[in-house]
Amino acid sequence: MSKAKQLRNRMAERGLVHIMAAHSPLSAVLAEEAGFDGLWASGFELSALYGLPDMSLISMTQHLDMLRAIAGRSSLPIVADIDTGYGNAINVIHAISEYERAGASAVVIEDKTFPKVTSLAAGGRQELLRVEEFQGKIEAAVNTRLDPDFLVIARTEALIAGLGEEEALKRAKAYVQAGADMILIHSKKNDPSEIESFARAWDGDVPLTIVPNAYPDLDANRTQALGNIRMVIYGNYGIRAATTAMQGTFRRIMADGGVQNVHKDIVPVEEIFRLQGMEKTKADEKRFLR
Amino acid sequence: MSKAKQLRNRMAERGLVHIMAAHSPLSAVLAEEAGFDGLWASGFELSALYGLPDMSLISMTQHLDMLRAIAGRSSLPIVADIDTGYGNAINVIHAISEYERAGASAVVIEDKTFPKVTSLAAGGRQELLRVEEFQGKIEAAVNTRLDPDFLVIARTEALIAGLGEEEALKRAKAYVQAGADMILIHSKKNDPSEIESFARAWDGDVPLTIVPNAYPDLDANRTQALGNIRMVIYGNYGIRAATTAMQGTFRRIMADGGVQNVHKDIVPVEEIFRLQGMEKTKADEKRFLR
Amino acid sequence: MSKAKQLRNRMAERGLVHIMAAHSPLSAVLAEEAGFDGLWASGFELSALYGLPDMSLISMTQHLDMLRAIAGRSSLPIVADIDTGYGNAINVIHAISEYERAGASAVVIEDKTFPKVTSLAAGGRQELLRVEEFQGKIEAAVNTRLDPDFLVIARTEALIAGLGEEEALKRAKAYVQAGADMILIHSKKNDPSEIESFARAWDGDVPLTIVPNAYPDLDANRTQALGNIRMVIYGNYGIRAATTAMQGTFRRIMADGGVQNVHKDIVPVEEIFRLQGMEKTKADEKRFLR
Amino acid sequence: MSKAKQLRNRMAERGLVHIMAAHSPLSAVLAEEAGFDGLWASGFELSALYGLPDMSLISMTQHLDMLRAIAGRSSLPIVADIDTGYGNAINVIHAISEYERAGASAVVIEDKTFPKVTSLAAGGRQELLRVEEFQGKIEAAVNTRLDPDFLVIARTEALIAGLGEEEALKRAKAYVQAGADMILIHSKKNDPSEIESFARAWDGDVPLTIVPNAYPDLDANRTQALGNIRMVIYGNYGIRAATTAMQGTFRRIMADGGVQNVHKDIVPVEEIFRLQGMEKTKADEKRFLR
Repeated sequence: MSKAKQLRNRMAERGLVHIMAAHSPLSAVLAEEAGFDGLWASGFELSALYGLPDMSLISMTQHLDMLRAIAGRSSLPIVADIDTGYGNAINVIHAISEYERAGASAVVIEDKTFPKVTSLAAGGRQELLRVEEFQGKIEAAVNTRLDPDFLVIARTEALIAGLGEEEALKRAKAYVQAGADMILIHSKKNDPSEIESFARAWDGDVPLTIVPNAYPDLDANRTQALGNIRMVIYGNYGIRAATTAMQGTFRRIMADGGVQNVHKDIVPVEEIFRLQGMEKTKADEKRFLR
Repeated sequence: MSKAKQLRNRMAERGLVHIMAAHSPLSAVLAEEAGFDGLWASGFELSALYGLPDMSLISMTQHLDMLRAIAGRSSLPIVADIDTGYGNAINVIHAISEYERAGASAVVIEDKTFPKVTSLAAGGRQELLRVEEFQGKIEAAVNTRLDPDFLVIARTEALIAGLGEEEALKRAKAYVQAGADMILIHSKKNDPSEIESFARAWDGDVPLTIVPNAYPDLDANRTQALGNIRMVIYGNYGIRAATTAMQGTFRRIMADGGVQNVHKDIVPVEEIFRLQGMEKTKADEKRFLR
Repeated sequence: MSKAKQLRNRMAERGLVHIMAAHSPLSAVLAEEAGFDGLWASGFELSALYGLPDMSLISMTQHLDMLRAIAGRSSLPIVADIDTGYGNAINVIHAISEYERAGASAVVIEDKTFPKVTSLAAGGRQELLRVEEFQGKIEAAVNTRLDPDFLVIARTEALIAGLGEEEALKRAKAYVQAGADMILIHSKKNDPSEIESFARAWDGDVPLTIVPNAYPDLDANRTQALGNIRMVIYGNYGIRAATTAMQGTFRRIMADGGVQNVHKDIVPVEEIFRLQGMEKTKADEKRFLR
Repeated sequence: MSKAKQLRNRMAERGLVHIMAAHSPLSAVLAEEAGFDGLWASGFELSALYGLPDMSLISMTQHLDMLRAIAGRSSLPIVADIDTGYGNAINVIHAISEYERAGASAVVIEDKTFPKVTSLAAGGRQELLRVEEFQGKIEAAVNTRLDPDFLVIARTEALIAGLGEEEALKRAKAYVQAGADMILIHSKKNDPSEIESFARAWDGDVPLTIVPNAYPDLDANRTQALGNIRMVIYGNYGIRAATTAMQGTFRRIMADGGVQNVHKDIVPVEEIFRLQGMEKTKADEKRFLR
């Protein structure tokens, strides 16, 4: 059974799956050990790891390389964040083929134009693609996947772009018509009202995905109460946690003039060895080195 | 002035430079902001990021890719951990050429045989290279660098291999004779006695480098008191800090059924934006997007 | 003296430099040995090597990896084909920084929209960017380069898009105003008339670059007669030659049921050893292996 | 049915499969069109493409990247040349896992020590691994593969190292005992006598593979007459053919001062478009671009 099928089954069984953003195999292993159902191969987290704005600067092959490394170290299904699909429908076809081969079980494609611009840019262009053009991208994705269980999730930025719920619903339905397996609905409000309203109004044939970064109050209980959200993606917590800890630790080492204090407040190096799989390697050395 | 020259000058001016291990541009930027003098492109940290044992599994090109990304985001000089040089003297020649082009200011080469084995392996083979063979590698490195300020640091594992201080001193002198700019002396004891004894006995023509992971009590004051240590490398603190924080955060999110609690204990996403250089990007958008 | 400066000097001295497309270090070494003045890190040739259409499918980092490998093996200056700059002016800033660090001496940026479409596509959209938007990209490039001799070459597709010579001249001048060091003028006609007419009409402050793929009759003599063309790029000859030979050789081996015939018609393996630099390696082994 | 299974079936049906070395997706597509049964992901050809000696300088991840690109463009099974397995049995475990995930159907591992040295090196060290150590590597490989049809081919360099047929036979049998699916026997003589003698003497339980580079007279008829050779690998013909053609073409362009003559002797650019799959892309544009 493919991991994509496992992910679909898990959604059917549990009603809601919890997907944690990973920017590395290490963070993926930690997410798996913590009990998450899947991993979000996040463009934002990977950009942050590389110290670059999340503005289509990290290349598709850099993202694929990290996704592949993650797939080699974690048994969880991976949902890949492919932004706009790296261009038009032709780029989407290439991307779907590469992401499926790399070990992804799902992709999220968004209906923004390429390349991204910040919301504060001159002109503030949070432009969306024409509906028909994005439908072409969804159809191209669905048509390219080899595993019919591979999930094509369409993300609409209609609320982010300030186009309102009606436009968001219209777009979501058009994307389902084009073959999308799920709709990711996103909001930039710092409370869940827009998402909750959308979910209540949604009567499409496929379930919803959300990313409660800006509205942390939308917890699992409130989410499940809405009835049609099957996937929640936790979008940037690993990289923010790691940053917090490294920032504090580095400052203390400089202040202390050494590591004599910090070493007690962080996991011992043996815990890193464990996460690296040293036990298996030692067993393999005993068995195969002669 | 090259960064290698800057690093040499800094050692001359300050007596001791503090080098923090980085496994990504993000951790490099944090180390630079905290005030470190340079970065350690650590094989151990990168292996850990990839969830793999530090056993010569990460390839040289994977290491170079990360080093290059770091060099693109930090102005600090980079000391590259090249293990045994990826093979023999021919591999060292290729490696030095690639690392210098990638933006490193120094390399550390160790006198172990390739590939690494864990210390608990059957037979426990912590074998060292013959002195003449390692001298050939040092000479090859020195002969290959284009910038005469690029530092070739020879690391002896003689104490780790249990061969004693006399052998360590003999090897260190032989490596200096072959052209090494500094000696990295390492110990697996969990107190600094071996290192301090070696440093006191050392009367070679070049200064020493240490990596006080196992002996955190060897802080900057004790180090400077020894008089001939010019570089201290903090070897695995970033990855241990990041692991500690991600592990705790991921567990809490699962336990809480959401991010409603953890989001207050980690840096806000705006801090990540800052580290990604979003301010410059917004300014660039204003200036160049039309 | 930087290679970019060398390239500028060579143009000044000789009046015309000959740049050969390379898709690999091997083809670069062969071009250098044949006497070319520089290399064209061609997106088309690299796409063809990867068996993919030249439709923005090869990522920037794949192109950079190959360019870096070429720069490591050839002493010639490299002119990088960066298509539209991988997105908008923000992407151009990132690209220029990366290409300069990777060893390029010049880039060619074209005024098409991203992503590429084939000329036979439905709608036939060979759209060009608005002039002001492309000027922003040129300014961003010029502003980002560290070496003032690094060449920013603006390519206009106005003739290809059927917009006529007047529009091509107007755009070329606008790009020079924005800081372009040279103009690359391209035509899809299979004779040089459009190019010759443009060159005669050109009275801008910078010289021209051409790519005589479709109009091979425009040889060095005719080119120099025009007086303001300083660079000629030979765009796809290496990959076409290699394809021709591999196709013939592979077919003969299958037809012959072995290599007993073909091996006489291709260079001996010793010639490959020579191109790989085996002589230097053997000398290095003698000197440094002990 | 996996491609590994297809390759095994093909050997069973035809008695002998013909495997062509490929250094790129382009050369792979040409080999597939010519009718070969599979591809050899050659370390030598890839090193040559990168202008580097075949001395363990190209990294495993560079080789994997190219193999993956080939697997994405050709339907043929791929036999991967993994040299010594990039280190010891621990490295082999990592390698097998990565090569199988990348799309290889078989690997060839050789019993030399790492890293390679040229045969003319000081000391001329063509050392072989101890038999037990190499058996450990074979067992590690067999134990790691997920698909039981994935072929582990053991290559003995005993004849190359001048150890004679008896040693070669002894080693080959020991490797079969350790689980090898096939034996690759290689010779540096420029006639097939050693290979033919070995094949006649071979009474092991698995069939043989040969690489008739040095002895082109060993064609398919003579090979099949030996009765126990099931795979012939053509090791460096693509890169030699490509080099021959590029060298000649580049020289002529310089001599002619233009491409006015050579363009008639090489495939037209339309043939490159065909190999890039432009027809499918145009059809996709019609269907999915709106």
